[in-house]
Amino acid sequence: MMKTLYKFLLAPGPTPLPEEVRLEGAREITHHKHPAAKKMFRKVTDDMKWLLGTKYDSYLLASSGSGAMETAVQNLINTGDKVIIINAGNFGGRWVKINKAYGANVVEIKKDWGDMATPAELDAVLKENPDTVAVFCQLSETSTGACSDTEGFAKIVSKTNAILVVDGVSGIGVVPLKMDEWNVDVVVGGSQKGMMLPPGMAFICMNEKAWKLVENNKQHKFYFDLKLFQKKLVDNETPWTPPIGIIYQADKAFEMMKAEGLENVWARSTKLAKGIRTAMKAMNLELFAKCPGDAVTTVKVPDGVDGKKVTSVIRDKYGVTIAGGQGDFTGKIFRLGHMGYMDMYSELACLAALELTLKELGHKFEIGSGVSAFMKEMAQE
Amino acid sequence: MMKTLYKFLLAPGPTPLPEEVRLEGAREITHHKHPAAKKMFRKVTDDMKWLLGTKYDSYLLASSGSGAMETAVQNLINTGDKVIIINAGNFGGRWVKINKAYGANVVEIKKDWGDMATPAELDAVLKENPDTVAVFCQLSETSTGACSDTEGFAKIVSKTNAILVVDGVSGIGVVPLKMDEWNVDVVVGGSQKGMMLPPGMAFICMNEKAWKLVENNKQHKFYFDLKLFQKKLVDNETPWTPPIGIIYQADKAFEMMKAEGLENVWARSTKLAKGIRTAMKAMNLELFAKCPGDAVTTVKVPDGVDGKKVTSVIRDKYGVTIAGGQGDFTGKIFRLGHMGYMDMYSELACLAALELTLKELGHKFEIGSGVSAFMKEMAQE
Repeated sequence: MMKTLYKFLLAPGPTPLPEEVRLEGAREITHHKHPAAKKMFRKVTDDMKWLLGTKYDSYLLASSGSGAMETAVQNLINTGDKVIIINAGNFGGRWVKINKAYGANVVEIKKDWGDMATPAELDAVLKENPDTVAVFCQLSETSTGACSDTEGFAKIVSKTNAILVVDGVSGIGVVPLKMDEWNVDVVVGGSQKGMMLPPGMAFICMNEKAWKLVENNKQHKFYFDLKLFQKKLVDNETPWTPPIGIIYQADKAFEMMKAEGLENVWARSTKLAKGIRTAMKAMNLELFAKCPGDAVTTVKVPDGVDGKKVTSVIRDKYGVTIAGGQGDFTGKIFRLGHMGYMDMYSELACLAALELTLKELGHKFEIGSGVSAFMKEMAQE
Repeated sequence: MMKTLYKFLLAPGPTPLPEEVRLEGAREITHHKHPAAKKMFRKVTDDMKWLLGTKYDSYLLASSGSGAMETAVQNLINTGDKVIIINAGNFGGRWVKINKAYGANVVEIKKDWGDMATPAELDAVLKENPDTVAVFCQLSETSTGACSDTEGFAKIVSKTNAILVVDGVSGIGVVPLKMDEWNVDVVVGGSQKGMMLPPGMAFICMNEKAWKLVENNKQHKFYFDLKLFQKKLVDNETPWTPPIGIIYQADKAFEMMKAEGLENVWARSTKLAKGIRTAMKAMNLELFAKCPGDAVTTVKVPDGVDGKKVTSVIRDKYGVTIAGGQGDFTGKIFRLGHMGYMDMYSELACLAALELTLKELGHKFEIGSGVSAFMKEMAQE
């Protein structure tokens, strides 16, 4: 069996870091109130506007993406408020759990995993629930790879008094999001997916419509209290010590993304995801998501193959980390990320490892069919 | 004027990183569910026991130290619960703010900044308030440099039904804390002080007495819900993506601290702080804290000197970052940290820069008196 040396991380987060970003991680720490650090903080905060397509400031948090999700609920939703949640996977389910934890009156639009609600469905449920305060959705549902028509959701919600809160954790910097143009009210995200950064920084961005809810919010809160963040941002500071190391890394990652161009960053994941989908079919594999997005490709574990072994063999024998399924789909699907610092070579490595892994585990297909189909896609204009 | 090249960070957090720790920060990211990452997570969690002097697990959070403070309140205190808070500075005040944000019935033992409550005072207030659920204090009050008799507090509180919650953010790894031996129930801390790590990781550790309160807690919560952390730690995981980069850096920092020995780590800050205190006096400066601790030395800005200029001139002209005062003491004191990766050389650099800065700002003292007094202390056995 081919011995491999390199390691590849193709899970849907955390994702690999470019060397330039990693080396920023070896810098000495600067005090966060040093003028140079505050300048850097403002620069990265401004770059967030570019990334999200908005004129509004993002608030940078020392937390994981789930902390930013909690920030949204804790600052926007009062106990008893009615919310609509599009729940088509683990992270839709997380919106449900957080909202219930804060006593919201939750109306779920529940879809099978792999499926996704449509704007028309949301429209109907919103009309039945005109007292809805907020609608929660995922830009990309990481657990299933299903894309969502966030632009379509925003069109519907923006005509009502409700706000649209988008979990962009695994979608931002991977698939298109144009916050202001689409009328998205709130976006949350984390550092370790499309942003080519280590885990540890998250963010929330909101427009005036959402800020009105913050003003009237009565939840107990402190660490994630956005009013405190707003007050401090005037001086390019945060109420608590920020993850300053990641801020410096973010500056470098933004430099790289800006050099590539945001449309090109999105196009890169589109092309890689398309290539991977084609390769899966060529390897006699079936895609899981009914409306597959370009951030994560989810694939059904073929009959006769032990799904848990797919992720462990490819990792332990071939050095490639991919993700298995979550919840009820543990062992039934595997997930390949196309987020952040990914290119033709990393996807090829993933395919090569997957071919050898699946062959070893008894799946019937022709060795080389995956990489060959992928390269045909890459060769297209 | 002497041109300087090197930069030194001697604020009471964030603190400098050893090169070994910084280089770990340049590593590629490992998926947090990779067996190697889980093993590392367990190792660091076990090392936390060594650091805190406890048999109990710490829960590692992606947040700043303030997030760990919120975790304590959100998991331990129900709305309406009576709490006693020793408030002798900015971080005592932070305990008050967080507890009030969660609707606690706050009894304050309020002391002037620079002063600190005694165990006898706490005993009296506890006797007046036998329905107290928890007592909150600081191991070291970062804003004033005052030390606290945490061991004495614990002796009092452990005889009651209340628990003692210690903010160890700026004290852990700097001044002695022996959680189990002293009967401290809850300790919170952050990465960027005595632990020689970048900001972005925090922790909370609690014993069975405290866990009973967690079981009965009714606050709305999610991101900082310790029951979720407890459930995941069985598999050496966290409910949300952990700051895995800092976990790897922590392993290296623990390796260094263990090689030095915890008693020696504490003794190093004791010796440096003593040297700095002696130097301050030799430079005709007055200490601010009535009971100065070894984590932070606070010094009164001498008459006729512009206090805000002290911190900016020493930083911009001499490359040394120290901290000014907080709250009402902005411009009236300055603060020198003795936390983490500090030694004779870094303190000497600080003193040299401070001598030139204060001379320039008009303070009367003999140039060289600070470094010379400091070296006399260093030469002692």
